[in-house]
Amino acid sequence: ATHSLFLLPGDGIGTEIMVEVEKLIAWTNSEQLTDFSTDTGLAGGSAYDRHQVAITDEDVAKAKASDAVIFGAVGGPKWDNVPYEHRPEAALLRLRKEMAVFANLRPAICYPALADASSLKRELVEGLDILIVRELTGGVYFGEPKTITDLENGQKRAIDTQVYETYEIDRIARVAFDLARTRNNKVHSADKKNVMKSGVLWDEVVKGVGKDFSDVELHHILADNAAMQLVRNPKQFDVMVTDNLFGDILSDVAAMLTGSLGMLPSASLGAPDPVTGKRKAFYEPVHGSAPDIAGKGIANPIAMIASVAMALRYSFGMIELATRIENAISAVLSDGLRTGDIAQDNRKTVGTEEMGAAILSK
Amino acid sequence: ATHSLFLLPGDGIGTEIMVEVEKLIAWTNSEQLTDFSTDTGLAGGSAYDRHQVAITDEDVAKAKASDAVIFGAVGGPKWDNVPYEHRPEAALLRLRKEMAVFANLRPAICYPALADASSLKRELVEGLDILIVRELTGGVYFGEPKTITDLENGQKRAIDTQVYETYEIDRIARVAFDLARTRNNKVHSADKKNVMKSGVLWDEVVKGVGKDFSDVELHHILADNAAMQLVRNPKQFDVMVTDNLFGDILSDVAAMLTGSLGMLPSASLGAPDPVTGKRKAFYEPVHGSAPDIAGKGIANPIAMIASVAMALRYSFGMIELATRIENAISAVLSDGLRTGDIAQDNRKTVGTEEMGAAILSK
Ligand SMILES: CC(C)[C@H](C(=O)O)[C@@H](O)C(=O)O
Ligand SMILES: CC(C)[C@H](C(=O)O)[C@@H](O)C(=O)O
Repeated sequence: ATHSLFLLPGDGIGTEIMVEVEKLIAWTNSEQLTDFSTDTGLAGGSAYDRHQVAITDEDVAKAKASDAVIFGAVGGPKWDNVPYEHRPEAALLRLRKEMAVFANLRPAICYPALADASSLKRELVEGLDILIVRELTGGVYFGEPKTITDLENGQKRAIDTQVYETYEIDRIARVAFDLARTRNNKVHSADKKNVMKSGVLWDEVVKGVGKDFSDVELHHILADNAAMQLVRNPKQFDVMVTDNLFGDILSDVAAMLTGSLGMLPSASLGAPDPVTGKRKAFYEPVHGSAPDIAGKGIANPIAMIASVAMALRYSFGMIELATRIENAISAVLSDGLRTGDIAQDNRKTVGTEEMGAAILSK
Repeated sequence: ATHSLFLLPGDGIGTEIMVEVEKLIAWTNSEQLTDFSTDTGLAGGSAYDRHQVAITDEDVAKAKASDAVIFGAVGGPKWDNVPYEHRPEAALLRLRKEMAVFANLRPAICYPALADASSLKRELVEGLDILIVRELTGGVYFGEPKTITDLENGQKRAIDTQVYETYEIDRIARVAFDLARTRNNKVHSADKKNVMKSGVLWDEVVKGVGKDFSDVELHHILADNAAMQLVRNPKQFDVMVTDNLFGDILSDVAAMLTGSLGMLPSASLGAPDPVTGKRKAFYEPVHGSAPDIAGKGIANPIAMIASVAMALRYSFGMIELATRIENAISAVLSDGLRTGDIAQDNRKTVGTEEMGAAILSK
């Protein structure tokens, strides 16, 4: 095989929607459009149930050795009380850090057929196409100290540390500017430089990188205002670059605006290898493991399938095949097929399998 | 005088809208509804221009000695390049910290007359009434270390520190639960306990406090999901309690949802004095200094006037007068009067002064 994929379905609906990915890959392989080998591992609660860790060292090694990881979703109430270091999310955090996939690309696209599903007025979201570029391996997620200590009188003190160094901001800014050039040449950089020193450095470094991209418009925006402006008038944005924690929140707001949450994929990319030029890569839907609907065969597989399309585009340069898949998704939606999460009057509600099959047949 | 108010108009539209507050107070005093003494200080850029600091020690002392501070807004491009420690926002941060007003109450109310101004569909926001209770004197805003250091090769490292101790979470949680009892007995507590130790402690302490309020429903929600759910279906929330940084963002999202940003006040309260029971208090509009429209006499004074109503309610127990002012605001809006920020077809657009006068005459 030319390329290796490592599949980590995870928990909840993750396992159900990954089945549709396997069918898609089997088909592209059989059509000789791709030559993928696949291997499958355990992550999150399902890994904990088997191995008492959120992910095994062996599976982390496989993820690092693969050309791309295709990840489902992790978590669920079943694992609410497992030890903190083994909670399902720990799998995700460990993979991000060890794979060093610092650039998290979260497109927020409003599918025309779904504009009415948005809680915003149609005219504000129709045609929306924002790309949030979130720093993924630094900031308060990984900074040390990160501790809870006992004080006197039964009091405790909890500490998390937001740390950023110049190089971390520089490289994520370059990713954002490069992507802006393939889009509308506009970047908003969001931070809280009015209260955070990391925001001051963030802004300074992004502005410095901006000088190398004089053809790209650069705007500074405070993160709280960015959240507001996303709600007020999201179409003012094209690419938004921000840190790990603000990116977590702002990308979720942006995703929710589109009314297409179950449709949105994401990509997390590492630095290009100096010799081969290859980047470690990790693809996952923006939505979670939806334990409430897991096991019912009704989950929406579109974000998961769109994540594979992103892999084809960003890891394997198969732009045409990626576009074909994306168009197939749009076409199926235009035909009126819907899963339960996006059900509409006068549209046909189908299950996970039927939706996957419909996309495949397009 | 029975009560002292310290007015800090600040910058931009802050000075214009504070004029309407002065007229209101002159009237309530003359009607013997109140017996306020007032004094006025400088904060933000206007203080910097005069004294080269964001606020003088003398004005901080006056703020601490007053029964309530009525604050306008600070900031503007004019002061973009002043030294970091003297930037306009520093006034706000210093006052919060030195007055120890840890409990920031940010109501997000959708005025019926303005429901169409929201970017959300009318049915999702009509009747919306959320109260965000934000911790205001701790967390990443004030934690140490908070530094930028030079490394080798021209690299820098920036650090901000999120710190919370049990007592800080305990007291803000009690404020939230107490307020929930005067409303719908429901509290959502938002944190990122899946990645932050401060979130783990936050959740543990809030749940502990919740045991003393068994009549109040307590829900945990991750901060990123809270941001999404605010956009998806805001009416599911009543009181939301969260830390300083998440509160900054979530309260801005909530405010923007209502379409009534220029209408929203906020209160920041300290702990009751063990002897007198008095709380230090700080009232300000949620909106900023709007430098783009400053000096034109078109700013919306409603949030500023509503902040005085909040002061009457929370600092002086004058519930009836507070309600009268709030009803006057609603009445003026129902009569069809609008400032430019909320202008609508078939409604009359008026300036700051005319809006202030109309509310006063009601
Ligand atoms: C599951 C959680 C650790 C994760 C995060 O906070 O990064 C998620 O919210 C995300 O955005 O991918
Ligand atoms: C001006 C700024 C320092 C402030 C904050 O971040 O707290 C503002 O955004 C607010 O919410 O009051």
